[in-house]
Amino acid sequence: MEDYELPEDSGKKPVQPRTSDEKEQVLNRLKRIEGQVRGIQKMIEEDRYCVDVLVQISAINAALKKVGFSLMERHTNHCVADAIQKGEGEEAINELMKVMQQFSK
Amino acid sequence: MEDYELPEDSGKKPVQPRTSDEKEQVLNRLKRIEGQVRGIQKMIEEDRYCVDVLVQISAINAALKKVGFSLMERHTNHCVADAIQKGEGEEAINELMKVMQQFSK
Amino acid sequence: MEDYELPEDSGKKPVQPRTSDEKEQVLNRLKRIEGQVRGIQKMIEEDRYCVDVLVQISAINAALKKVGFSLMERHTNHCVADAIQKGEGEEAINELMKVMQQFSK
Amino acid sequence: MEDYELPEDSGKKPVQPRTSDEKEQVLNRLKRIEGQVRGIQKMIEEDRYCVDVLVQISAINAALKKVGFSLMERHTNHCVADAIQKGEGEEAINELMKVMQQFSK
Repeated sequence: MEDYELPEDSGKKPVQPRTSDEKEQVLNRLKRIEGQVRGIQKMIEEDRYCVDVLVQISAINAALKKVGFSLMERHTNHCVADAIQKGEGEEAINELMKVMQQFSK
Repeated sequence: MEDYELPEDSGKKPVQPRTSDEKEQVLNRLKRIEGQVRGIQKMIEEDRYCVDVLVQISAINAALKKVGFSLMERHTNHCVADAIQKGEGEEAINELMKVMQQFSK
Repeated sequence: MEDYELPEDSGKKPVQPRTSDEKEQVLNRLKRIEGQVRGIQKMIEEDRYCVDVLVQISAINAALKKVGFSLMERHTNHCVADAIQKGEGEEAINELMKVMQQFSK
Repeated sequence: MEDYELPEDSGKKPVQPRTSDEKEQVLNRLKRIEGQVRGIQKMIEEDRYCVDVLVQISAINAALKKVGFSLMERHTNHCVADAIQKGEGEEAINELMKVMQQFSK
């Protein structure tokens, strides 16, 4: 297993901490995605047909986007909404738009 | 670790088997991606800031697309080109277009 | 020119009407995009090289996304923020997420 | 109407000229898209609801991608296949991959 260095901690936190239920749901999806990535490695080792591998990669991308959008929804409902209610919405909305644009690439 | 079931083997193979160098290159990238997916799991466990997680997910998506495009290029250079030279290009090109459209979502 | 039927009017309006400056800015971009679409028609008529046409189509898509994101930003700053402040954020955020997902395809 | 300057003519041509039927089909789709772009302009003038405009923009993007993919398919079937048969596939495939990546953004 490769040691992957996390990006530096921005120190920011979700306004409302994720509940353990929320964490578990996201973690389950991510573990499944991790399994899919390992699955493609196996396909490469077994020299499986390129298009079959590509279909799997598309499936992982779709699954990641789905996780991303659910995080984005929670973020908007909590962090962005909270900032707006405090009259500090502008920065939060800018940040949201930027990450959305990155996502839509 | 989750046991992820691979899709049924279509039985097709790359016209030209991947060399061990080629395999290693792709596998290294995929291992790195696997590490990144584990990295996000850790970020969720540590309740890291939503936008920081989203930025990471975008990075993984970009990395997966890059692997996908390099596989697609190899596929076109070998399998599709081979089919065209045998006068059986139509099916191969149809298949390529379909997978490309899935990819561009 | 083809008569294109607008989708039925939902009757909803932006919380804060667009100023004439804002309208003009968006309209200028859209007129430019309209010109680009006519440009591709000319390229097809002149039997220009496929890849050159494709590059142009990508450029139009990028320009449309840019307009879309600027509208989305304004929408979030006004309509969504307003709904949140009135305690009716949930529906507005759901709607925003849906349109964002459509956009990222 | 804005005068939109076409990109400089690369001088390349489709290996097999588009038939007038093919031209007409593509042109009809592009005229419809042009009409849709004018439709959004009207929506902006009438200060229609932001999300309704965004849904329309997504629809245009989808329509443009569809035209793009059909051009790409024809290009692969003719120009790329022709280059491959002449043993000059590499450059054509590189070009195809590049434009595909631009498309998937």
